[in-house]
Amino acid sequence: MEAGVKEIFDSVILRFGGELWIKRAWTRRMYKRRLVRNIKNVLRRYEVPYSEIVSRHGRLFLRTGSALEATQRLARVFGVSSVSPALEVGSSKLEDVVDRSVFLAGRVLGEGNSFAVRCRRVGDHPYSSSDVCIVVGRRILDEFGEERSLKVDLKGADVGLGVEVRGDEAFVYSAVVDAVGGMPLGTQAKVVGLLSGGIDSAVACWLVMKRGCPVVPVYFDNAPYTDETTNERAIEVANALFDWAVGFPRKMYVVPHGDNLKKIIENCSRRFTCLLCKRMMYRVAERLAEVVGAEGIVTGEAIGEQASQTLTNLRVLNTAAQKYPIHRPLLGFDKAETERIARKIGTYKPSTRKAKGCTAVPKKPATMAILKEVMEAEKKLEIEEMVEKSFHSSRTLSE
Amino acid sequence: MEAGVKEIFDSVILRFGGELWIKRAWTRRMYKRRLVRNIKNVLRRYEVPYSEIVSRHGRLFLRTGSALEATQRLARVFGVSSVSPALEVGSSKLEDVVDRSVFLAGRVLGEGNSFAVRCRRVGDHPYSSSDVCIVVGRRILDEFGEERSLKVDLKGADVGLGVEVRGDEAFVYSAVVDAVGGMPLGTQAKVVGLLSGGIDSAVACWLVMKRGCPVVPVYFDNAPYTDETTNERAIEVANALFDWAVGFPRKMYVVPHGDNLKKIIENCSRRFTCLLCKRMMYRVAERLAEVVGAEGIVTGEAIGEQASQTLTNLRVLNTAAQKYPIHRPLLGFDKAETERIARKIGTYKPSTRKAKGCTAVPKKPATMAILKEVMEAEKKLEIEEMVEKSFHSSRTLSE
Repeated sequence: MEAGVKEIFDSVILRFGGELWIKRAWTRRMYKRRLVRNIKNVLRRYEVPYSEIVSRHGRLFLRTGSALEATQRLARVFGVSSVSPALEVGSSKLEDVVDRSVFLAGRVLGEGNSFAVRCRRVGDHPYSSSDVCIVVGRRILDEFGEERSLKVDLKGADVGLGVEVRGDEAFVYSAVVDAVGGMPLGTQAKVVGLLSGGIDSAVACWLVMKRGCPVVPVYFDNAPYTDETTNERAIEVANALFDWAVGFPRKMYVVPHGDNLKKIIENCSRRFTCLLCKRMMYRVAERLAEVVGAEGIVTGEAIGEQASQTLTNLRVLNTAAQKYPIHRPLLGFDKAETERIARKIGTYKPSTRKAKGCTAVPKKPATMAILKEVMEAEKKLEIEEMVEKSFHSSRTLSE
Repeated sequence: MEAGVKEIFDSVILRFGGELWIKRAWTRRMYKRRLVRNIKNVLRRYEVPYSEIVSRHGRLFLRTGSALEATQRLARVFGVSSVSPALEVGSSKLEDVVDRSVFLAGRVLGEGNSFAVRCRRVGDHPYSSSDVCIVVGRRILDEFGEERSLKVDLKGADVGLGVEVRGDEAFVYSAVVDAVGGMPLGTQAKVVGLLSGGIDSAVACWLVMKRGCPVVPVYFDNAPYTDETTNERAIEVANALFDWAVGFPRKMYVVPHGDNLKKIIENCSRRFTCLLCKRMMYRVAERLAEVVGAEGIVTGEAIGEQASQTLTNLRVLNTAAQKYPIHRPLLGFDKAETERIARKIGTYKPSTRKAKGCTAVPKKPATMAILKEVMEAEKKLEIEEMVEKSFHSSRTLSE
């Protein structure tokens, strides 16, 4: 969007993804209500003024004098598929629609630009969508065509002018900004997210948030095998994630896990340290899920990404979670793909700040652990007692 | 790549993803051995002639007179991150490297092109990488610079000339083709993949294949609630997937499931039909996993994608799998993202061919099923008997 057109817009058009339309009417209404609530929370948090938000024929329209800022903020609300700053026409009469379109064209079309006009129309009108395109296109050429050397290009236009006619209202716009997509946060059940502060777990949490699940992050504090830098990194990453969940609690659970890890190292084969550590984490996460009313546990594991994450080891890990599914949205991702998302969502920078790595990691971890051996190793630990102790000594961090 | 340069290449450079380099030496060797085997299988299947494939300093080099075809085929081998058709220099002497580079430049640089030279060097040589770039660049400008109006552009060059010097060998190339990435197929344990023939399950299977897991596909034949068109669609989709697993068995298990579905409909609340149907599928898949030695089960479920796939319902589904983890690589995907991958991997077309949808799907499926109610419903079924019967009446389809 050009800087010079800043002040002309008076509204924003919000579009939803195609997935919403295959839902039943009841579900759709519930999703839309939740989306509107999430949108209002974002506008309030960033102090973006607006007068009204209305739902019409499968779109949301926001009336605001800060259309560009609203566009930028709302493109990051889950459930929104694209956003356009727009001009309200005030009626759906053809001449009004054409006038307003030509006005916008006059502001956004530059010397030598090619342009195309597209119209979407819902409702009964004495004109067709292609009438709108033809009349608007002709008027633009008549008014500035020669002076600015404009030309029509229906395929690769520099500027696409859009006209939306919905019942007795109409809007015109000149840019469609891709938004994050997904489903409105809060339309699915809660999950507990194992958040290490590293790149993967943050992206995993974000991906389930994108599908509508509020995430309750839990961080396992492995001190003395890690230190304050590791904790601070996790807090920063959690904050970056919370920015995607405006209106939801900004609260992270911190579980002291160093004692457990110490017992694991002292009593069991070093080959199994990471597996046993993680199995304990799953168990504590299950306790937490019960208490917060979550329906699953999310982790950042990807197949083969680390020694503990071979497919064989994932199976060994899974048996530690008895009541809740372990969801692994990164299962099929390459590291490079995960990093690309982390950059996009703002967790890459905090995830890669300097932090102490866990010193309990052994030199030769088991890559193909056998469940029976792992279970045997765990017999040397007071598993239940350890879980209860960890769970009850956990604290929450919130802003 | 220009058509005119077809015949000049005599070799192909294959590069691996960054993930391979963080593995331990033993794992890396095993991965590379597997990759070479997979590559040979692809070349054999498509009858691409080659004389040798050698591993040098973190690259594979293939000597072949069909470099362009090999490039196209090998870009679709899991574990390969990029491919370049190349010219072998035959020595690593600077003058030979320069001669060969200039020869290639003469073939690929067109009128008005901008170009850049890049060199990667491993080993001891009496020249540096930037020496190579400077000398080659200068020679190119001397020989054809004026005549073809060439210019150097280090950032956005039309043609990037690459020089790879590895020990006493060297190769030059002019194009880097992005490959599929991931890990060599067969470096992870097997999984059983629930393949419906629809878009999602095929992409889910492909994603775990990409991470190295061979997939044993199983299809549940719901006749009379589906028909031959549904079966044919699944077979076509399986064949598209098998093309990504050259050298691995092209075998799909088909389980008669209509009787189970009939019993579910007759005995249990219609709200639970899809959940109970899927729980049965998981159980049969577990039996199959035992027999084929798989370590997990893969499904195409994504959060909220269908009524049976709310997070709450996924938890209800999970309890049916007692021994194997249910892996859901699409968990965090929007439908549009899944479709994009399906198009890329060649399963979209077969997945969307005309096929009868399952007529057992109820009008009002439960979106927030309560586990206790589902368990109660299952009491009316002879679950174990049904599983055993299905499993033993399954047949395999192979080419």
